[in-house]
Amino acid sequence: MTSDTRDPRHDCLFEPVQIGPKTMKNRFYAVAHSAGLGTTKPFSQAAFRGMKAEGGWAAVCSEYAPVSQDSDESPSISARIWDADDARNLALMAEEVHEHGALAGLELTHLGGYASRNESRVPSLAPTAFPSPYDPTSVPKEMDLDDIARVRRDWTLAARRARDVGFDIVYVYGCSDLPFQFLSPHHNRRTDGYGGSLDNRARLWLELLQDVKEAVGDECAVATRMSMEALLKGGVETDEILKFVEMADPLVDLWDINMESLVAPTDTGPSRFYPQGYQLETTSLVRSATQKPIVGVGRLTDPDRMAQIISSGALDIIGGARPSIADPFLPAKIESGRYSEIRECIGCNVCVMKAEIGGHIGCTQNATAGEEYRRGWHPERYTRATNSDSPVLVVGAGPSGMECAITLAKRGFEVHVAEAEDEVGGHLNWVRQLPGLAEWGRTVEWRAAELTRLPNAQVLTGTRLTDEQILNYGAEIVVLATGASWASDGVSAFAHDPVPVAEQGAPAIFTPEQILVDGIRSPGDTVIVYDADGYFVGPGMAELLAVEGFNTTLVTPLGVVAPKCDYTLEGELLRRRLRERGVQTRTQTTLGSVDVGAVTLIDETGTESAHETSAIVTVTRRVPSDSLYRSLRAATDGQDTETAPTIYRVGDCLTPRIIADAIFDGHRLAMEIDGPDPTTPLPYARERAVVPLRRTDES
Amino acid sequence: MTSDTRDPRHDCLFEPVQIGPKTMKNRFYAVAHSAGLGTTKPFSQAAFRGMKAEGGWAAVCSEYAPVSQDSDESPSISARIWDADDARNLALMAEEVHEHGALAGLELTHLGGYASRNESRVPSLAPTAFPSPYDPTSVPKEMDLDDIARVRRDWTLAARRARDVGFDIVYVYGCSDLPFQFLSPHHNRRTDGYGGSLDNRARLWLELLQDVKEAVGDECAVATRMSMEALLKGGVETDEILKFVEMADPLVDLWDINMESLVAPTDTGPSRFYPQGYQLETTSLVRSATQKPIVGVGRLTDPDRMAQIISSGALDIIGGARPSIADPFLPAKIESGRYSEIRECIGCNVCVMKAEIGGHIGCTQNATAGEEYRRGWHPERYTRATNSDSPVLVVGAGPSGMECAITLAKRGFEVHVAEAEDEVGGHLNWVRQLPGLAEWGRTVEWRAAELTRLPNAQVLTGTRLTDEQILNYGAEIVVLATGASWASDGVSAFAHDPVPVAEQGAPAIFTPEQILVDGIRSPGDTVIVYDADGYFVGPGMAELLAVEGFNTTLVTPLGVVAPKCDYTLEGELLRRRLRERGVQTRTQTTLGSVDVGAVTLIDETGTESAHETSAIVTVTRRVPSDSLYRSLRAATDGQDTETAPTIYRVGDCLTPRIIADAIFDGHRLAMEIDGPDPTTPLPYARERAVVPLRRTDES
Repeated sequence: MTSDTRDPRHDCLFEPVQIGPKTMKNRFYAVAHSAGLGTTKPFSQAAFRGMKAEGGWAAVCSEYAPVSQDSDESPSISARIWDADDARNLALMAEEVHEHGALAGLELTHLGGYASRNESRVPSLAPTAFPSPYDPTSVPKEMDLDDIARVRRDWTLAARRARDVGFDIVYVYGCSDLPFQFLSPHHNRRTDGYGGSLDNRARLWLELLQDVKEAVGDECAVATRMSMEALLKGGVETDEILKFVEMADPLVDLWDINMESLVAPTDTGPSRFYPQGYQLETTSLVRSATQKPIVGVGRLTDPDRMAQIISSGALDIIGGARPSIADPFLPAKIESGRYSEIRECIGCNVCVMKAEIGGHIGCTQNATAGEEYRRGWHPERYTRATNSDSPVLVVGAGPSGMECAITLAKRGFEVHVAEAEDEVGGHLNWVRQLPGLAEWGRTVEWRAAELTRLPNAQVLTGTRLTDEQILNYGAEIVVLATGASWASDGVSAFAHDPVPVAEQGAPAIFTPEQILVDGIRSPGDTVIVYDADGYFVGPGMAELLAVEGFNTTLVTPLGVVAPKCDYTLEGELLRRRLRERGVQTRTQTTLGSVDVGAVTLIDETGTESAHETSAIVTVTRRVPSDSLYRSLRAATDGQDTETAPTIYRVGDCLTPRIIADAIFDGHRLAMEIDGPDPTTPLPYARERAVVPLRRTDES
Repeated sequence: MTSDTRDPRHDCLFEPVQIGPKTMKNRFYAVAHSAGLGTTKPFSQAAFRGMKAEGGWAAVCSEYAPVSQDSDESPSISARIWDADDARNLALMAEEVHEHGALAGLELTHLGGYASRNESRVPSLAPTAFPSPYDPTSVPKEMDLDDIARVRRDWTLAARRARDVGFDIVYVYGCSDLPFQFLSPHHNRRTDGYGGSLDNRARLWLELLQDVKEAVGDECAVATRMSMEALLKGGVETDEILKFVEMADPLVDLWDINMESLVAPTDTGPSRFYPQGYQLETTSLVRSATQKPIVGVGRLTDPDRMAQIISSGALDIIGGARPSIADPFLPAKIESGRYSEIRECIGCNVCVMKAEIGGHIGCTQNATAGEEYRRGWHPERYTRATNSDSPVLVVGAGPSGMECAITLAKRGFEVHVAEAEDEVGGHLNWVRQLPGLAEWGRTVEWRAAELTRLPNAQVLTGTRLTDEQILNYGAEIVVLATGASWASDGVSAFAHDPVPVAEQGAPAIFTPEQILVDGIRSPGDTVIVYDADGYFVGPGMAELLAVEGFNTTLVTPLGVVAPKCDYTLEGELLRRRLRERGVQTRTQTTLGSVDVGAVTLIDETGTESAHETSAIVTVTRRVPSDSLYRSLRAATDGQDTETAPTIYRVGDCLTPRIIADAIFDGHRLAMEIDGPDPTTPLPYARERAVVPLRRTDES
């Protein structure tokens, strides 16, 4: 057990901070981030953001909240505050956040020329009519003075609505959005009073601050977000930013500073490329230009680092988006000195992928993120299962097995975890060795530590159990979490038959595990990584082998290298990294056969060509390691449940998927283990318009 | 005016058809298609599908309706029928369809291994565990017998729910979904009673038909959809399909036959590549294997062709998806002989783009599609505007100007349309000359004909009006629809400054209009098309010039050639076409400068290279032709409205966008011309969960 005593150096983190008319009870601020909830899922939104308040964050923001229909971001889900119904939905969040003594913040914004207008079909608006890089067929309307006046009115109206439903902090959101587009000489080529000089380019932003200040400034703190990404296309030079900060300072109660950029994911930098605190050097430059409090981010999870940032004066307030998703109770755990219990963000950006693509947030580290309302899960509180007197054996201590064991133990079960290897961690033990992915190992470390803290959980490593040993273990519930492994037969989403291999003289064929677990390497100096998976394993293999000196080519049937990494904001950086490492790439190319000393590749035109290589690594398909499950099911099916245990499986041995979903699966089974049919996930609450029941005229 | 008498050859289209226990009043069947409405927007769904019933379709289907949460297709919106609330929402559609005397159909389905599971996070299911080509990181669970039994139960439950809320036709949807995945030897590699022989592979589909027949077969027609795409990967050979049809025939009341395929957009073939009726040769093969009615599709809008299909016995029922979107009143117009009023689908597939990407359907030809509920629009009925006694002058007879004029005339205005050119049509007159886009010209033809039918609308071609002539025209409302034109300065979404051009000896720089309207060609034999737009103009130019014999290279800063065409299902076919035409392509490449006899291109690594060419076509940015608007606004601002007309603008001269949205804009202005501020679009009704107002405890 931990000592549960707070280090006095961290006391400064729990000092109150005044922001305008409001007081934060400590220095932790959950900044805005997309979650796929918005005003569309008001109960999920309230529960998700409310959890951060419960976990000790003194202020909690929604995601971005467009003020009018010309800032329509569909299909992305935002916290639109276009009308009174939107405001009513958001009220639920403000109430839930207040319930736990925190301030509620709403990031009022307008995306200007980057609005998608997919749903509304109305024109987008911009200082100058440059096509949107996200959809060049959509050219915004160059705003005339009527448009400017209307957007100012919309913003003021939205601020009043936000105040009326209880928000404590309202934003004039800047970075990359409309106020910043006016400030940026890259976007703004106007020749009227809103273009040209810094004074002119700053005018709209200052007017909006003035409007909002006048409208709600004695009842709400007025915050603004500024991006410090001067060096990149579309940015504003640092000296102009600092001059703007000085100009705006009297109107601002809180400066929210980040490194948002249109051309690199610097605001949500993946851990593969950005270390903890990576934004601070840049964002702290603002200190010289303001007397107002500053909040900043940088995937901060280390309280020593946070305390040092506060003491140094670089920031006044510790902002967090991803750390608050991975552990909503981060502040509470620091406050009570439960440091080792902190579930640290791994920087994988699956939250971004899930919020943007799936339309509903999720987290690798925190299986309960996004599930607070719809499945009624809580990251820290668990109810005893009705069948908790049944002893449980979990076989396999990878991420999913450990998550399942932890959750079962918290629900009152006596849990044994048997792991065949000498260490817990499953496939994460080799995944974390891929270049840049060391932080992903936190998924293992947190779970291993959590298991040691649970008196009713016991982990047995180096314990490979036979069928018979499992059946006679004394467990009434057996959960198999035996994982999956990469196949070497070339079968993939794109080829359902094994790739033909020459009987003699073929290049060596390796799976990722053979490279990283078994340490096998190409017998020659060339290697092809054939990646039909499209996520991190293929490029990780290629980078690793290129760094080791192999002449490496990544071949993929997909249209781009690692498309799934685009959703985690790693794609562009990863492809650049591969180029820097000298990895050759071929897209839209299928592996036809493995021949003598070469492979046959088929390009998108159907043209075949031979490519000499001494080895090929197949990142093609993962196969569940489910032989134990099959034999145990065969042995127990039809048996008396009085004597035979019930057999479940979780994670990749059920079906291989990304780590976040495998962990989710382990959690889900444990949460529903006392339900009617634990193998079939229970329905979750869906928020949608439901047509009211109508009275029929039948009597 | 048209003669309004039906050709007797078309009488056969209005014979009733018996399908199981139900009778279709005629032979028109609005097949399932995605609309972005589903159960998520129940009122829009009811109004959109109900409009087809009002327009004379004897049966109207929803989009695909997954029966359980393991067929979660988010972020795509589907007509999920997972629970009673979903069914209640869908009831609204069934009621609305019945209101107009049509049958309502629900396409019950399960997407098996292709389910996105983005929202639900539960595993997808498949006969064999091949990764999904749409997301190879997601491997489905190979269904065990428990899973099969559960899916059968879910399907039966869904069918009962559909029946209970009034659906007349329920589906066991086949093509590319779970039943077909079992039938297909490409997907199904099972070794149990559900794999191997045709009998085994057909088992699940037959069981589902039997289940549904037993559950609701005396109250609902049971339909099934079969894909005839034997030649493509994942398909089933034709002889096996015909054998399956024979096996299933006793259980089926209606065969819905199409050419859906996993690898080509043959079910929704864009007009650029597929002519009207393109599916018939293949789908009619089923005739020999069944005695039951057959419905099929193929973008059929020509009644002669339809009558011939019925007489020939190829199909019993004329199915339509896109034709029913472009004109819900297609059957009614044929029935009453109003042939020339039919608004024929142009096959641009913007409906697919809008439904899938935007999450809400729209149509190029029919501006009211998807707007029936949320904006209260009707494609055929118009209310007189409160200010309809104001004479209107529309300047410019492109698609948006004509749409605006038509809609204003239908709302009771006296409308004059002045077009500077000798023909109406605007930029569509050159767009339709691009290879394969001839059918797009229907947007012009229908509008030109409609204007001639409207007694209160008058079109004046060859009439270029000056500012003064416009102001003195006698119009109280002036709508400018003067379009936009492509710029030649190289400014784009990706470069906000003009591209430097050598003062002498530079390659010729042309805009698309200069090529197609002015007929100018490269002085040499090489040409570069620089496409920063990413839709149809760039590849259209490249194909045209390549066919003419120019050595053509398409260069684009985007990651792929014409990414927007992927949303209209044209992308792959278009890129293949360009290859066939010998067009070279370079992606992720920016135009740096236009030098002496060459251009400098910059690839994604930042490397510059010279590329010799005699000409370059810039498809970079469209600039509104708004000088008339600006000068008229300058002349009228502050003027007495008694004497000066009110000036509006619509379409591309307001802001350039895709044709569908420009037409929508013209329609919108006309529909809101008597609103409080016609320049600002009115809010539209949004369907969403809204938190109920709570009673406060305050007294």
